[in-house]
Amino acid sequence: MSYVSFPASRRLDFTAIGRLCIDLNANEINRPMEETMTFTKYVGGSPANITIGMSRLGMKTAFIGKIANDQMGRFIHRYLENNGIDTSNVVTDDTGAVTGLAFTEIKSPTDCSILMYRDHVADLKLQSHEVQEQLIADSRVLLISGTALAQSPSREAVFQALTYAKRHGVVIVFDLDYRPYTWTSPEETAVYYNLAAEKCDIILGTREEFDMMETFDPNPEHSDSLTAQKWFDFAAKIVVIKHGKQGSIAYTREGLSHRAESYPAQVVKTFGAGDSYAAGFLYGLMQGWPIEQSMGYGSAAACIVISSHSCSDAMPTVEQVNDYIERCNRGEITVS
Amino acid sequence: MSYVSFPASRRLDFTAIGRLCIDLNANEINRPMEETMTFTKYVGGSPANITIGMSRLGMKTAFIGKIANDQMGRFIHRYLENNGIDTSNVVTDDTGAVTGLAFTEIKSPTDCSILMYRDHVADLKLQSHEVQEQLIADSRVLLISGTALAQSPSREAVFQALTYAKRHGVVIVFDLDYRPYTWTSPEETAVYYNLAAEKCDIILGTREEFDMMETFDPNPEHSDSLTAQKWFDFAAKIVVIKHGKQGSIAYTREGLSHRAESYPAQVVKTFGAGDSYAAGFLYGLMQGWPIEQSMGYGSAAACIVISSHSCSDAMPTVEQVNDYIERCNRGEITVS
Amino acid sequence: MSYVSFPASRRLDFTAIGRLCIDLNANEINRPMEETMTFTKYVGGSPANITIGMSRLGMKTAFIGKIANDQMGRFIHRYLENNGIDTSNVVTDDTGAVTGLAFTEIKSPTDCSILMYRDHVADLKLQSHEVQEQLIADSRVLLISGTALAQSPSREAVFQALTYAKRHGVVIVFDLDYRPYTWTSPEETAVYYNLAAEKCDIILGTREEFDMMETFDPNPEHSDSLTAQKWFDFAAKIVVIKHGKQGSIAYTREGLSHRAESYPAQVVKTFGAGDSYAAGFLYGLMQGWPIEQSMGYGSAAACIVISSHSCSDAMPTVEQVNDYIERCNRGEITVS
Amino acid sequence: MSYVSFPASRRLDFTAIGRLCIDLNANEINRPMEETMTFTKYVGGSPANITIGMSRLGMKTAFIGKIANDQMGRFIHRYLENNGIDTSNVVTDDTGAVTGLAFTEIKSPTDCSILMYRDHVADLKLQSHEVQEQLIADSRVLLISGTALAQSPSREAVFQALTYAKRHGVVIVFDLDYRPYTWTSPEETAVYYNLAAEKCDIILGTREEFDMMETFDPNPEHSDSLTAQKWFDFAAKIVVIKHGKQGSIAYTREGLSHRAESYPAQVVKTFGAGDSYAAGFLYGLMQGWPIEQSMGYGSAAACIVISSHSCSDAMPTVEQVNDYIERCNRGEITVS
Repeated sequence: MSYVSFPASRRLDFTAIGRLCIDLNANEINRPMEETMTFTKYVGGSPANITIGMSRLGMKTAFIGKIANDQMGRFIHRYLENNGIDTSNVVTDDTGAVTGLAFTEIKSPTDCSILMYRDHVADLKLQSHEVQEQLIADSRVLLISGTALAQSPSREAVFQALTYAKRHGVVIVFDLDYRPYTWTSPEETAVYYNLAAEKCDIILGTREEFDMMETFDPNPEHSDSLTAQKWFDFAAKIVVIKHGKQGSIAYTREGLSHRAESYPAQVVKTFGAGDSYAAGFLYGLMQGWPIEQSMGYGSAAACIVISSHSCSDAMPTVEQVNDYIERCNRGEITVS
Repeated sequence: MSYVSFPASRRLDFTAIGRLCIDLNANEINRPMEETMTFTKYVGGSPANITIGMSRLGMKTAFIGKIANDQMGRFIHRYLENNGIDTSNVVTDDTGAVTGLAFTEIKSPTDCSILMYRDHVADLKLQSHEVQEQLIADSRVLLISGTALAQSPSREAVFQALTYAKRHGVVIVFDLDYRPYTWTSPEETAVYYNLAAEKCDIILGTREEFDMMETFDPNPEHSDSLTAQKWFDFAAKIVVIKHGKQGSIAYTREGLSHRAESYPAQVVKTFGAGDSYAAGFLYGLMQGWPIEQSMGYGSAAACIVISSHSCSDAMPTVEQVNDYIERCNRGEITVS
Repeated sequence: MSYVSFPASRRLDFTAIGRLCIDLNANEINRPMEETMTFTKYVGGSPANITIGMSRLGMKTAFIGKIANDQMGRFIHRYLENNGIDTSNVVTDDTGAVTGLAFTEIKSPTDCSILMYRDHVADLKLQSHEVQEQLIADSRVLLISGTALAQSPSREAVFQALTYAKRHGVVIVFDLDYRPYTWTSPEETAVYYNLAAEKCDIILGTREEFDMMETFDPNPEHSDSLTAQKWFDFAAKIVVIKHGKQGSIAYTREGLSHRAESYPAQVVKTFGAGDSYAAGFLYGLMQGWPIEQSMGYGSAAACIVISSHSCSDAMPTVEQVNDYIERCNRGEITVS
Repeated sequence: MSYVSFPASRRLDFTAIGRLCIDLNANEINRPMEETMTFTKYVGGSPANITIGMSRLGMKTAFIGKIANDQMGRFIHRYLENNGIDTSNVVTDDTGAVTGLAFTEIKSPTDCSILMYRDHVADLKLQSHEVQEQLIADSRVLLISGTALAQSPSREAVFQALTYAKRHGVVIVFDLDYRPYTWTSPEETAVYYNLAAEKCDIILGTREEFDMMETFDPNPEHSDSLTAQKWFDFAAKIVVIKHGKQGSIAYTREGLSHRAESYPAQVVKTFGAGDSYAAGFLYGLMQGWPIEQSMGYGSAAACIVISSHSCSDAMPTVEQVNDYIERCNRGEITVS
């Protein structure tokens, strides 16, 4: 059974809008960053990672975003191009904005943190009139990400993209990706997240992210089904609520809930798990697979990424995901 | 026939949210402001004026807004109280914000302008969590005004008020009131006006205001019926498009358009015409009158205000409007 | 004996730089501003008032400042022109800045306050390169005022004016005029006040203003002579410290202190006392009068202003000051 | 002959105030940064580098500055401590500021550039009241650096430090270090540089930096001696003007000019040359050496740093400088 109907035969399978930045991953890990002396540079940002993931899985993809007019921006542009992602709507900033940075600290597989540089970043300077309606019209799916709603003019650009997507029957996915440091207050955050979510077909987030969105709503028990039902009253068809190690639960408009099995992994760090999960899950849905199978596919993709040093660079191909699942099924991979 | 169904038997007929400020009207008129030596102080701001108008017409009213902690703010609070307006949700700023000012210049009845002080004003500091859900739940109508969408946190407060109004079945009126100087760009303006308008039952604005809202839409001929239809695809029941001296046209979801007759006036200045029109028109609708009659009532109320020196202070009572219409019908009032 | 040597035979006696704004004085006085309904408009701002005062006393004057491109700005420009003040270095802002406003509240002759509008004001937008070196070179005296140091770029413009004045041997007067609301912190204020004061020949201020300037200095007893001595170690020749009703004390580099007698007045309000005092005092010094006589002349000028409704408009002529002193001497004026 | 008299027998030889940041130096060099994949982390910032240099040369040193409350800030603090620098006046920011970053790009030994992250940086948040008067009173030399004047409150903190240094007879050195990207305009820059330079005993800068400071001065021929004379009219004893490959020229108050011989170097990159020069030169002056010898010592120290991958980490000891000079004298080092 298909819970979401994707438009057929468009030039692009998947287009994302939002954050494009640089990850600087500590080379010397399992120690505090004070003791790290060298860092390796990767493309980062949740929607960028998901798009790279979709491209690796063989989907035709595009990105809508803004990069700094500097060496970091040009590196990002080149990396997207090299991964087969349409960059015709990746605009270059002309105001002196910088590229957002994320320095990763890996003290242990379960104790990871990020040091962010998000002041005056190019990705939040994308303007409404820079969003190309035709590119969205040519897409089967548009993915938006919460961070792009944090500031003007990027916020308006995302809402404009939503208007175009609705106008052209594009399936809209909302990856909540709530990063408090770019926001003024939880109240402000809740208002814009809700305005965006009302227009989305598929919503993916953690229980904590949905709690933030319910700042002004009555849901004292943090009930997942109450949360899901709120969005089914608007446009949503699928709502996925993630509970960390307890796994994820997917609700569908028809009133069913679904849980996927998870896979073991030799965890290096936890960064990138959500992005690779999203790519694998959406890939499955777009193949017409059942929700459980799609969720499992997302989990396997996530396992591959968290077993690696990078996020974007480790996004797996179909062969790699299939191989991982088979090795798990054969008992060849065990929890670290 | 009733085009909008107002909830019955609530404590309040009408609640507005948004701008509260001070008008400083030139006492020596028909000259440039450089030659004006004295000014008289009045309460101003479009939603405040409409609320005062509704109160004068006998409706039970309330206001949601924020005032400066200074002499101007206390004057506004006292004036609202003296006009029988519930001020339990008029919050006092504690950040040192000032009261917005509008100095009026009346060079001639047809050449009027305003010098605005809108930096760091208290009315735009209203926060989401300061909006009282119960007050909105107790109201038959909520009126929002575009200027309150211009900046954070007031913008979020208005969207939160819209959420509460939808939750409790309150009829929502949007008076567009577009003032470019408080906005960053027409694109930004269009995005938020559209997000708000999607949720509104009655939308009132000039052709130019609707044009701004269609920045990203195809309507090259500036067709009123195309404009109206866009909003009927969302929640709207009535869309009123004003064409200045050519009069206003009201569209209803049923596909009909309506024009009201207008009345002559001895014009002193044009300020306040829109606010008094809105009050008279909404009063008529809430009485269950036909649209044409409601529009005519709004026009008569507007004539009274533009024949006077002030806006808020000149808002008429039912007796005054009826008397004005009768005098017009008897030919006692002619165009100045 | 002459304590300060003024350059002879220049085109201009007196040039001031800094704040130009509008006073809106309550017409209905001896009540809180909440109950005031009308206001009268005057030119205001401490250095503007002093310049008007000097012009009324017959001096050749000029002003260096920036006005808004609006009706208020044009009113100020016209008023200066009408008072014979050279406005060739009064620049018009082109960034949309507004004219600063000061609403006065006169609850009683001894209970007066001001409600200020100082956000985004034109006078603080004056830039270094807009200051005309030749105008300063043509002046015998340059007066600076503390408020102009509160923000960039006005702050830099004042320091640039000081450089020009030093280069051309112009006597520099610093009227402290400390207004906390335009400053970030007392520490910031102290730093810039001190940097400016180091270059000045005559410094006029209240004990409280000098205390602020000594934030980082050891003067626990608030000793006037210690305060004066600090500045004599730099460029100062005369330091006047005002103690409100206790009168003023002037120190000279030679080590003497001087006190002037004061005059009775029928006080309407206290605004403008300092500005008219400065004008009278500087006028006396420039005539070569002894310090006590100059201080007395300043006091008499101040009495005239505080007996009137306005500040700038009430600045007296030589005849008026002389007449006031004679009437006081004849016992015709008594304390209100 | 001694041109500057340093106070004797104080706890500290040398204290600097200002910028503390992180350099991220490309590991793969001689290519554009787009192709660099890894970076190594070092402490950076001109005054920090000079202080590290002075410490390596055996001087007792301290630093006055502000670091971010994050891993980068703690790394800086630890590095200063490990280099024997007194950090008792290195304050930790509590406002969420970040550590300034400088990514270096080395396309070739003569084509180097820097990508800066200077938004919301901790070093510019140092406040006046955080500067310890006693630490300055305990120092023989205070070095200030132009970048710290770029923004409030760091600018005020530097001026306050200058006041303390004057009060306690500390020799003040000004390393101009002009970085346009942190400033609003050249006019603003000139004003504050000049205000600071008026109080300094030794001023070091490039011809271009002195040109910027003369924005409002008449020096059309860019005459070095005119530039030097301007500062001798204030407090300066020595003014060093650097002309890149043409070498530096030092002027002294007595009217003499001095040129030093330079040394050959195997250049890796040009970063850090000025900082190591300043350390070597000041070290020589404090030893009582002639100016030419001090300049030569600075040149040799600079050669060592530009032959290395880092700036701070490559600052040489006395033995290393002496050895370098001897090897040059023996002809063992030739220009790359």
